Amino acid sequence: MYVIGERINGMFVDVKKAIRAKDGNVIRKLAERQVTEGASALDVNVGPTVKDSEGAMLWLVEQIREVTDIPVAIDTAKWGVMSAVVPRVKGDMILKSTKADTEIAARSAALAAEHGASLIGLTIDADGVPGNVDKRVELGAQIITIAMEGGLTMDKLFIDPIILPVNVAPKNPMHCMEAIAQLRAFADPPPYLLLGLSNVSQRCSNRELINRTYLAMAMANGLTAAIMDPLDKELMDTAITADLLLEEMIYCDSFLEAARQS
Amino acid sequence: MYVIGERINGMFVDVKKAIRAKDGNVIRKLAERQVTEGASALDVNVGPTVKDSEGAMLWLVEQIREVTDIPVAIDTAKWGVMSAVVPRVKGDMILKSTKADTEIAARSAALAAEHGASLIGLTIDADGVPGNVDKRVELGAQIITIAMEGGLTMDKLFIDPIILPVNVAPKNPMHCMEAIAQLRAFADPPPYLLLGLSNVSQRCSNRELINRTYLAMAMANGLTAAIMDPLDKELMDTAITADLLLEEMIYCDSFLEAARQS
Repeated sequence: MYVIGERINGMFVDVKKAIRAKDGNVIRKLAERQVTEGASALDVNVGPTVKDSEGAMLWLVEQIREVTDIPVAIDTAKWGVMSAVVPRVKGDMILKSTKADTEIAARSAALAAEHGASLIGLTIDADGVPGNVDKRVELGAQIITIAMEGGLTMDKLFIDPIILPVNVAPKNPMHCMEAIAQLRAFADPPPYLLLGLSNVSQRCSNRELINRTYLAMAMANGLTAAIMDPLDKELMDTAITADLLLEEMIYCDSFLEAARQS
Repeated sequence: MYVIGERINGMFVDVKKAIRAKDGNVIRKLAERQVTEGASALDVNVGPTVKDSEGAMLWLVEQIREVTDIPVAIDTAKWGVMSAVVPRVKGDMILKSTKADTEIAARSAALAAEHGASLIGLTIDADGVPGNVDKRVELGAQIITIAMEGGLTMDKLFIDPIILPVNVAPKNPMHCMEAIAQLRAFADPPPYLLLGLSNVSQRCSNRELINRTYLAMAMANGLTAAIMDPLDKELMDTAITADLLLEEMIYCDSFLEAARQS
C-alpha cells in the first residue's frame, strides 16, 4: 500500500497555526511521525486561508526536507502555484492533481514529466464528478492515455476515482470500487489506484471505523494507494493486514512491526 | 450480512464444561448474548470429545430453543448424527455441512428439503480442498446444481469456498475472494456465499485484526454470510459498516445500533 500521509494540511488547526507562526518544529515533527508510522509520501497543502500560497508551500516543503527525502505531494488547485512551486522543490514529488479535461491533463503531465515527478489524475471534468461507474472509467482511461503521451510511465501515475461521503452519496463507495477494479485492468502494469480516503466518512459518525473498513474493501478491489492519516494506528494496521491478505507481504508473527520498518 | 454465531461449540472450554455438567444456563446465556449482538443464526457443535454426540446436540438445541427461535446450524461431520438429529429439531435449521461429492451432496440436499432446512455446501470433495480458484468454483457450481435438483431454493443454500490460515496458505485468502466473486454470478439470485471466518487467522498473531480485515475484503467481493463470533464487537462493527458501504442499509448517525436492533 502506497500511503500518502495527509496530516500536513492547513485544514488542520495545528498546521494552520504553524504556517502563520512559521513554527517549523510542528511541521518537521508531523513529517517524522508520519514517516515512522509507514507513510510512503507526504501530502503538502497550505489550506484555504493562506494569502501567499506559493511561499507557504515552499516553506512547508523546506521543513519536510530537513527530516525526510520521501516524495512530497504538492497539493494545490491553483495552476499558478503548482507551476511556480514545482521547479523549486528538491527531491521526489507528486503533482496533486489534474482533472481529466484534455488541456489541463496535458499541461500537468508535461510539467510532471519535465521534473521527473509523479501525477495524480482525478476522474472529474468540466461536467463534475461522474454519477456512474462507466464515466469514471472513461475519464480515468483518458488521463492514462494523455499521461502516456506526455511521457509518464505508469509507476508515476495515480488515478483517483473520487470518493464521496457515504451519508450523502450511498452508491458512491460501490461505484469507486467497481471503477478501481476496471481501471486495474486497463494498463499492464496499471497506474496506482488512489483514493482520498477520509472523504468517504465526511460528517459521519464513527469516521475511523468507516475509513478503515472501506480501505480494506477498496484494497480487495485493487486500490493500491491512499491519501490517509498514517497516525491513525488502527487504519495503518488495516492497510498492512490487507496487504498481508493480498500476499503483498509474507506472514510473520510481527508482521505489523515488520511492515512499518520496511 | 448473515451472521452465524460460532460460540456454541465444544471446542470452547466454557461450552465443553457446560455439556459435561449439563449446565443449561451457560448455553442459554451464550445464545441470548449472540442474538443481542446481531447473530442471524447459531452454530451448534458438540466438539470433538463428546461420546454421545446425538444426545449432546439435542440437549444444546433444547437450551437454545428456550431463549430464541432463530435458525440453529446443526454442525456435525457425522452423517449418522445429522440424520438422527435433524428430524427432532424444532424450528428453523441449517445443515452444516455437505461436501461436493455427488452422493453426499444429494442425500444432504434431500434431508434439508424434507425438513424445510437450509444447507451449507463446502467446495471440497474426495480430493480435498482445491488448491486453485477454478476447482473451487466448479465444486461450488456442482453443489448448486445438486441442491436445485433436490428441491432447495437459493435462499436455503450456502456455499463455503473454505478459507485456510494465511500463515500456511498465503494465496488462499485471494483464491476465496475470487471464487466468491465468480460464484456470485453463477445463479440469480445467488446462494449465500459463506466463510468460516476465524480459520483465516488460525495460529496467527493479531487474530481479531486479521479476521475483521478479511471480512471487509471478502464482503467487498460478494461474501454475504459468515460463521463468526458476534461477541467480538469490532468484528460486528466491521460487518455492519461494510453492509453500509455496500448500500445494504441506509446511513444514520446511529447505524451501528440500528443494525443490531433490526
